[in-house]
Amino acid sequence: MTRVRIVDVAKTAGVSRATVTNALKGTGRMTGRTREHVLSVAAALGYPLATDPRRLSPSRTLALGVTTLGAEAWNFAALPYFAQVIAGALASAHARGYGLTVLPAAPADRRWHALVADGVLMLDPQQDDPVERLLRASDVPRVYVGRPACPEPSDVWVDNDHDSVLRSVLALLRSQGARRIALIAGPGSDYYACRNAEIYRLWSAEHGNDPLILPLDHPELGEALFATRRGERPDAVYGIYESAGRLALDAALRQGLRVPDDVLVACMSEDPAYTETAPPITTLSLSPRLAGGLAVEALIQLIETGKACPIPSLPVHLAVRASTRRG
Amino acid sequence: MTRVRIVDVAKTAGVSRATVTNALKGTGRMTGRTREHVLSVAAALGYPLATDPRRLSPSRTLALGVTTLGAEAWNFAALPYFAQVIAGALASAHARGYGLTVLPAAPADRRWHALVADGVLMLDPQQDDPVERLLRASDVPRVYVGRPACPEPSDVWVDNDHDSVLRSVLALLRSQGARRIALIAGPGSDYYACRNAEIYRLWSAEHGNDPLILPLDHPELGEALFATRRGERPDAVYGIYESAGRLALDAALRQGLRVPDDVLVACMSEDPAYTETAPPITTLSLSPRLAGGLAVEALIQLIETGKACPIPSLPVHLAVRASTRRG
Repeated sequence: MTRVRIVDVAKTAGVSRATVTNALKGTGRMTGRTREHVLSVAAALGYPLATDPRRLSPSRTLALGVTTLGAEAWNFAALPYFAQVIAGALASAHARGYGLTVLPAAPADRRWHALVADGVLMLDPQQDDPVERLLRASDVPRVYVGRPACPEPSDVWVDNDHDSVLRSVLALLRSQGARRIALIAGPGSDYYACRNAEIYRLWSAEHGNDPLILPLDHPELGEALFATRRGERPDAVYGIYESAGRLALDAALRQGLRVPDDVLVACMSEDPAYTETAPPITTLSLSPRLAGGLAVEALIQLIETGKACPIPSLPVHLAVRASTRRG
Repeated sequence: MTRVRIVDVAKTAGVSRATVTNALKGTGRMTGRTREHVLSVAAALGYPLATDPRRLSPSRTLALGVTTLGAEAWNFAALPYFAQVIAGALASAHARGYGLTVLPAAPADRRWHALVADGVLMLDPQQDDPVERLLRASDVPRVYVGRPACPEPSDVWVDNDHDSVLRSVLALLRSQGARRIALIAGPGSDYYACRNAEIYRLWSAEHGNDPLILPLDHPELGEALFATRRGERPDAVYGIYESAGRLALDAALRQGLRVPDDVLVACMSEDPAYTETAPPITTLSLSPRLAGGLAVEALIQLIETGKACPIPSLPVHLAVRASTRRG
């Protein structure tokens, strides 16, 4: 990829090079509208982030961003998993005297160019995420929550051991009599989605499970899950996202199937509401509050000493409920 | 109060006026250490915040800060009430395309001077809070969560109707046979603490209740609460802070008193742990998530239109549990 230059931003934005420089530095005389326009163009073209240490130094502030999913903004902070990552990150940042800026998820956000931060936490990086590309091209210290899809040797991240976690969930479902287990994963290209799908395929091959992977945004998830055209109808579903349990439960009921008698249902979730569904749904917690806290600790260590510290795998808590108890 | 000038900051910091100007603007050549030093001095002296709209405009970011309590930093984001205010503010900010910077609570924080934000949410402002003074002297749009101690006509805030809330709690305790109700409130000088104490005194006068107000940081809260020297021993305690219920319960047990038989206990709290104490403690929720969300909506309206919108009183949820049920 050719490096985007000031002149490219100036041409696309229809302004002078001096105006681009001033807009990026926050100097010069121009309207707020012009400045916003220039920053938006710079972000859209992938112009590198400013990394002037004199500008970054006095802020004692960290930034937290999440990967973008396609062209849509999505309110990740409203999901229990991300809310707990943020709460853990915030408490640790404040305990160390740092502020935390939580940016909305929007593609090529111009705020990444106007950012004043000593370091960045990046949640669930997707492959080829434009913000992650900008960060990699800069020298702003960064720590990932969720392993990057293509990590470089110096990358630092916190994550769970998804291989053993998924295997233990599949073993649980199998021990309760499941003969065909379906997986809800994707459409994202983050490591969490990709690795879970990969382990699921391996496990399926090892255990003679006819694999069926459906993305969360499938337009007819219910029908696709429980249709009998493609081989035997699944009698168990595991979803790697918080809403997957409710979706699978609703889909089963609409198809006239009973949970857990006809179909077992489990999902990853930090949402206490799954204790109150009918039946209550088995969930897996990924320790997001701890993830946020450890990521901040690692990031501050990186900022203050330039050195990464080893981070252990995060614990997982499986709450077995009626949705996976048979007989 | 005389307005602090650039030259005052320069003299105290031992640098030139040009260096102060550059440090405040984020321009010029100097080490990060020098810049930090100058910003710290500016903050300590109360030098007004930069309010250059060209600087503030492109960020589309809000800042959230909490009042300082004396000279100590305190990790407010770890308390359930504030965690929920922040979560509500974050979801609303992101839904409107704004980022949110949450600053740690520390007196005269230099970050307020390096701040890039379109507007500020200020939580629980104390009387004479140095950060609030800085904000009032600037023209950065601001909204309070919790009424300011001395509001000006243009001030915008979200809050509960503490008068009727406290009266209903006191009536509940009285209906369960309480003859002397003590209040845990303070030591802060925020409106919440002051107004609750004021209403409590009024109610006490109206109902022949011998008033006893103790601050949360009283060195011997338990002894002071249940000592019999000062009139009749209290047979009910209401605390306006999240930790007050547990403190009162522990203090009662240490004095050999039973809850609810000898002492009724209730407190404001958003902490679900009070459902599991022995006995479970009656709590009052102030709807902090809604408070954060409404405050952000009001702030964005102020930023984008320059106009304040009327904000209704926030609802309150009283969960009556065993700690206030007698007979």
